[in-house]
Amino acid sequence: MSHYLGMRPWATPAMRDVFSDEHVLRHALAFEAALARAQLAEELIDASAAQAIGTACDTLAPDPAELAEQAAFAGTLAIPLVTSLRQHLGDHPAARLVHLGATSQDLADTVLMCQVKAAHAVLLPDLERLCAALAGLAREHAACPAIGRTLLQDATAVGFGLRLAQALAGIDFAWAQLDAAIATHARLQLGGAAGSRAGLQGRGAAIAQRVAAALELAAGPPWHAQRVGVGAIASALGLLIGAVGKPARDIALLAQNAIGEAQEPRIAGRGGSSAMAHKRNPTGCQVALSAAIRAPGLVASVLGGLPQEQERGLGGWQAEAPVLAELFGLVSASLAAMAVVAGGLEVNQAAIAANLEASGLDAEIGESVAIVNALLASLRRS
Amino acid sequence: MSHYLGMRPWATPAMRDVFSDEHVLRHALAFEAALARAQLAEELIDASAAQAIGTACDTLAPDPAELAEQAAFAGTLAIPLVTSLRQHLGDHPAARLVHLGATSQDLADTVLMCQVKAAHAVLLPDLERLCAALAGLAREHAACPAIGRTLLQDATAVGFGLRLAQALAGIDFAWAQLDAAIATHARLQLGGAAGSRAGLQGRGAAIAQRVAAALELAAGPPWHAQRVGVGAIASALGLLIGAVGKPARDIALLAQNAIGEAQEPRIAGRGGSSAMAHKRNPTGCQVALSAAIRAPGLVASVLGGLPQEQERGLGGWQAEAPVLAELFGLVSASLAAMAVVAGGLEVNQAAIAANLEASGLDAEIGESVAIVNALLASLRRS
Amino acid sequence: MSHYLGMRPWATPAMRDVFSDEHVLRHALAFEAALARAQLAEELIDASAAQAIGTACDTLAPDPAELAEQAAFAGTLAIPLVTSLRQHLGDHPAARLVHLGATSQDLADTVLMCQVKAAHAVLLPDLERLCAALAGLAREHAACPAIGRTLLQDATAVGFGLRLAQALAGIDFAWAQLDAAIATHARLQLGGAAGSRAGLQGRGAAIAQRVAAALELAAGPPWHAQRVGVGAIASALGLLIGAVGKPARDIALLAQNAIGEAQEPRIAGRGGSSAMAHKRNPTGCQVALSAAIRAPGLVASVLGGLPQEQERGLGGWQAEAPVLAELFGLVSASLAAMAVVAGGLEVNQAAIAANLEASGLDAEIGESVAIVNALLASLRRS
Amino acid sequence: MSHYLGMRPWATPAMRDVFSDEHVLRHALAFEAALARAQLAEELIDASAAQAIGTACDTLAPDPAELAEQAAFAGTLAIPLVTSLRQHLGDHPAARLVHLGATSQDLADTVLMCQVKAAHAVLLPDLERLCAALAGLAREHAACPAIGRTLLQDATAVGFGLRLAQALAGIDFAWAQLDAAIATHARLQLGGAAGSRAGLQGRGAAIAQRVAAALELAAGPPWHAQRVGVGAIASALGLLIGAVGKPARDIALLAQNAIGEAQEPRIAGRGGSSAMAHKRNPTGCQVALSAAIRAPGLVASVLGGLPQEQERGLGGWQAEAPVLAELFGLVSASLAAMAVVAGGLEVNQAAIAANLEASGLDAEIGESVAIVNALLASLRRS
Repeated sequence: MSHYLGMRPWATPAMRDVFSDEHVLRHALAFEAALARAQLAEELIDASAAQAIGTACDTLAPDPAELAEQAAFAGTLAIPLVTSLRQHLGDHPAARLVHLGATSQDLADTVLMCQVKAAHAVLLPDLERLCAALAGLAREHAACPAIGRTLLQDATAVGFGLRLAQALAGIDFAWAQLDAAIATHARLQLGGAAGSRAGLQGRGAAIAQRVAAALELAAGPPWHAQRVGVGAIASALGLLIGAVGKPARDIALLAQNAIGEAQEPRIAGRGGSSAMAHKRNPTGCQVALSAAIRAPGLVASVLGGLPQEQERGLGGWQAEAPVLAELFGLVSASLAAMAVVAGGLEVNQAAIAANLEASGLDAEIGESVAIVNALLASLRRS
Repeated sequence: MSHYLGMRPWATPAMRDVFSDEHVLRHALAFEAALARAQLAEELIDASAAQAIGTACDTLAPDPAELAEQAAFAGTLAIPLVTSLRQHLGDHPAARLVHLGATSQDLADTVLMCQVKAAHAVLLPDLERLCAALAGLAREHAACPAIGRTLLQDATAVGFGLRLAQALAGIDFAWAQLDAAIATHARLQLGGAAGSRAGLQGRGAAIAQRVAAALELAAGPPWHAQRVGVGAIASALGLLIGAVGKPARDIALLAQNAIGEAQEPRIAGRGGSSAMAHKRNPTGCQVALSAAIRAPGLVASVLGGLPQEQERGLGGWQAEAPVLAELFGLVSASLAAMAVVAGGLEVNQAAIAANLEASGLDAEIGESVAIVNALLASLRRS
Repeated sequence: MSHYLGMRPWATPAMRDVFSDEHVLRHALAFEAALARAQLAEELIDASAAQAIGTACDTLAPDPAELAEQAAFAGTLAIPLVTSLRQHLGDHPAARLVHLGATSQDLADTVLMCQVKAAHAVLLPDLERLCAALAGLAREHAACPAIGRTLLQDATAVGFGLRLAQALAGIDFAWAQLDAAIATHARLQLGGAAGSRAGLQGRGAAIAQRVAAALELAAGPPWHAQRVGVGAIASALGLLIGAVGKPARDIALLAQNAIGEAQEPRIAGRGGSSAMAHKRNPTGCQVALSAAIRAPGLVASVLGGLPQEQERGLGGWQAEAPVLAELFGLVSASLAAMAVVAGGLEVNQAAIAANLEASGLDAEIGESVAIVNALLASLRRS
Repeated sequence: MSHYLGMRPWATPAMRDVFSDEHVLRHALAFEAALARAQLAEELIDASAAQAIGTACDTLAPDPAELAEQAAFAGTLAIPLVTSLRQHLGDHPAARLVHLGATSQDLADTVLMCQVKAAHAVLLPDLERLCAALAGLAREHAACPAIGRTLLQDATAVGFGLRLAQALAGIDFAWAQLDAAIATHARLQLGGAAGSRAGLQGRGAAIAQRVAAALELAAGPPWHAQRVGVGAIASALGLLIGAVGKPARDIALLAQNAIGEAQEPRIAGRGGSSAMAHKRNPTGCQVALSAAIRAPGLVASVLGGLPQEQERGLGGWQAEAPVLAELFGLVSASLAAMAVVAGGLEVNQAAIAANLEASGLDAEIGESVAIVNALLASLRRS
């Protein structure tokens, strides 16, 4: 049972791969193996056990569909996965040492944060391309007089590049916010049954430090029921998706036939119509705008789950992982689409001039160039 | 690339199947075939063409992953699918008659509404089981004095069944609302390029009537840019998910160790903990509560897209199909989980009596039984 | 301390009045008086007590600011209000009979539903004006060929009136949905301490029937913790606000200088700019679009509170009243603005013709007229 | 027409005052006066004009209700306010220099950001009290064995203070996020008609710097249509409200009669019931939980408006100010309530011990104390 047709329009294959069964399992098993190695280093288990667990993690290859049924039945992935690992280890004394001191949410949250890091890495090339293209356009057209429009009406002239520089500044800020949120909050979860790190012989902090290093995550106290970090990541994604929607809105408006100041690049087979051969649809902008409509509700879902109960909530944190996966999917498609749009944007100077002329307003663009320069100079990330 | 582990916790396999590639394609090809047959009946095309198109629709078997890439590139599924159908027909003169008078959104919206109908059918057995179980519990325990709790504090006694009857009444109303929304709005979309049914030789309404009948959808005018119907379906799903969350919240609170008045049924392997053998987690309630956290933001996404542009919006309607799929997924898992919970709920009469006794309040339950009876008598659907 | 500047832009004075202190108090005191009268009729209290309570309710005039402080401190309005009534009655034996068998939420929910009914009535004239104006425009311009636009690009011709007829159909459906939700769910709340109607000597249903009739509300069982009715009202408001946003979006796009097919009516002093004398801003559309951006999140807030705890929730229902007030405010401003816009819409036939000509497409409008007629014929409410 | 009863439950008087007509006008007139003074310093206008404008701003006292009607009619506050200022200046040549080079959104956004700063200052004392109280409780009870609860079920023992330390860490992070968002984004808006600072004779940046300094706002380029800053502030408020909801949820659960491990402070007249004299409701927690239900949808509203059109959006930014006012209202009430709750929390050691005993689990609290210390040491803000 595949779902390419339903999901591909709003998530890139590379991003879907980050959240695939294969990667869930890879991260989950990496967590269990790293835990065992850290417990060896801190002398909770012996080398033979750590070795055996590591080998089991390397070789276990459960059927994802079957495992998913078991996980849904049990209420959490860790239960059937740990059971499988133990069965895989058979009579080896290490079997009872698998997952030692850990709880199911330790596994789930750590896997999620490994995915967050991977998802972030997947976004970077498109973010860089989009920002570079917008910066180039902003610079190139900074001094070109164009009619500015407010409340959808002709206002006064601005430098054509100013609008793009503003859009870039918004994206850049949101990008920096996302980087910061992920650097701080893509953190190992290791708290054990009730978040006290009982069962780790007082070596919990040291073990957590080692596991985090192995998985390239930040270390720190457990956070089972304290989810502002997830909320901060979700909010930053929401800001970024909204910020990318800004140039999408503008380009789609500029591309209207009666305006014609800019158009998405002409790519054979893209943006056509099944009914109208003459059409050239702003298909990339559509992807970004569609993402911008969906993201706010998803951010709200994560924020709505913040008041989690006691040491581990009932329903709240379980709602987060699919929502984060969706936000990352949306941002991936939005960035990929708009990187292409901005990278090949066709700016029509004649139409710009004609529209300004038609407005009857003069070509005074005030401090547009200086503002473009100030915006470009203030970028934090791009 | 599969996604069982990420999606199974919040959507049943039966519901995921409704939104699978296989079903998207089946509905899409059924639409094209039904369109051709209707156009034959209304004498726009001849029998040979209708036959050929029908056969092509029966036999085309595109690779979903490849088709999804093409659709994402083109901006819509109809373009590569119609192209494939035409290629499949080769030199046959029917090739140019495929998709006659239709536009890509006709295909997309009609497929969506076929899925809505199928999804609705998938829900019904669990809805019936859940409501029957709640009704049975409400009746059985209507007169049993139990401490009522308001603002999470002991209040006065109520019949234990009253709380369940109230939950049932909420679910029943939302169910009726969903039925009505789907009956009205699961409607064929057939409007052509700009929603005027141009290109159908004045037979558009008649053709639409025939296609709708063939696909078992409601008929009516096109609705490309008028999306309140989708909004009504989404809202009804949001209400239903929230209403099912009500007994989930209550049962989870009743199951607290210090209260112990009810518990989810004991099922081997369900509700355990990877760290604590003694635990019995309210895993079914967790699924329903998690769905109730996610649904409101999704409803907001659909409502946020209502002010669509002109004859076909840019971004708004494209955001709807994945959100509806998600809402149906959430409700499927929520109902399946709570049907099991309510179906086997363990009510602990001794704990109920002991808690009432501990409250020091008397056992006067007022008109609880009459209210239970009134609620059960007022059900619209269950 | 007044808040006209912050609130007037998004709520009409008439609607703000519905939710003013004066009306809260009027409804609250009417509830207490009606309760006493009903208890007299059902022989729970004597005529002298009912009379005294009625007089007290007629004459009590608490200071709203002070009462609001007391209510915030106590956690609910009923506590200080009932205390005031009792003090007002002084030594009269009726003092202890005030609010007999009722709880604070009975008062709060009943007041809310009285406001819902009043708010609904306030909307109707603008709804009627808006729908009549849209119907008139749709009819008048049904056959006028205009370029249809899909994905913000010229598509094929449609009857200019078709777009407006579609918008009207959406508004009409949402209106009917709102009527139905209010008719069903604007219901008296009378359940007493824990929703069992204890303390009413078995006459609770009859008393509720009488109080509901006196307050012109629907009657039925208590619904303290079963909030799907509130959710249904909120959803219907969200649909309506979104549906009104549809023509606002379209008219704002049509009014763009480069398109110029329609404009908001010219009204001295409206739609100007503090910086640009030449501008004519779509100020009415702005109000409706702004409302359409805010409404979905508010609907989500109400849906998010559905899984309320036990016999009376903690936080959930307390979140509803201000959100409903806000939704009614938004819809009032949106309807008032768009009734003016549609009532005086300036349609520029020359621009319509010129834009169609410029598109190079033919003037074939398919079945536009028939679809307009079908849409107008299908209206449920307007 | 007052609205104390509707608004007081969810916003403190001090916060409502920040958004009152009086303060809107004060900030708006301060903006116009500072603009004139800056234009004097940069030699755009002469001393007599700047003086006259300053005096007019000091002495103008419009009727808020009337002005609000005019602003609603015009579509923006600046139009009637600037007209009033000019009339107030009568024949003085400065009359035409009022608002020179500014546009209505410059006024509206600058006023909003002055309010954001003032609102932030209002929050700080309660934030400090709440965090100090939580830190004290966390420290005091760090080593006290208590049953930890996961998925609402008894899990294993934890230090009682650990749960509170986690809650504090969440609040602290959100607080730091809010501080950072406000420091960066509470920025003067000064862009003129289309955001190019035309009409300021090339001195726009210098004038903006001076006006910002006078109003104690950050300076920088205009941001009329680039709203990620507003989105970042809204998101931070949403995180903070959710984070404060965490201890509210926990305390409400701890205060259940059957658990009794903690209770809100006993304050005469607070938390009672209009129907049940024995009750002690968690009224403070109710305020915080209610805020946490409403905030996510409001954040979504702001994020949904991000893709604003061109140089000034239609509907999007107009939606933000009331939503920010509401978020600040909610956080004010939530913090005020929880500062009292945490400041006087009654912890019942006997109940804690009894519940742990009843669980049959041992009192091993693992590294609870070290985690509490690590959390307290990592605080950014409190």
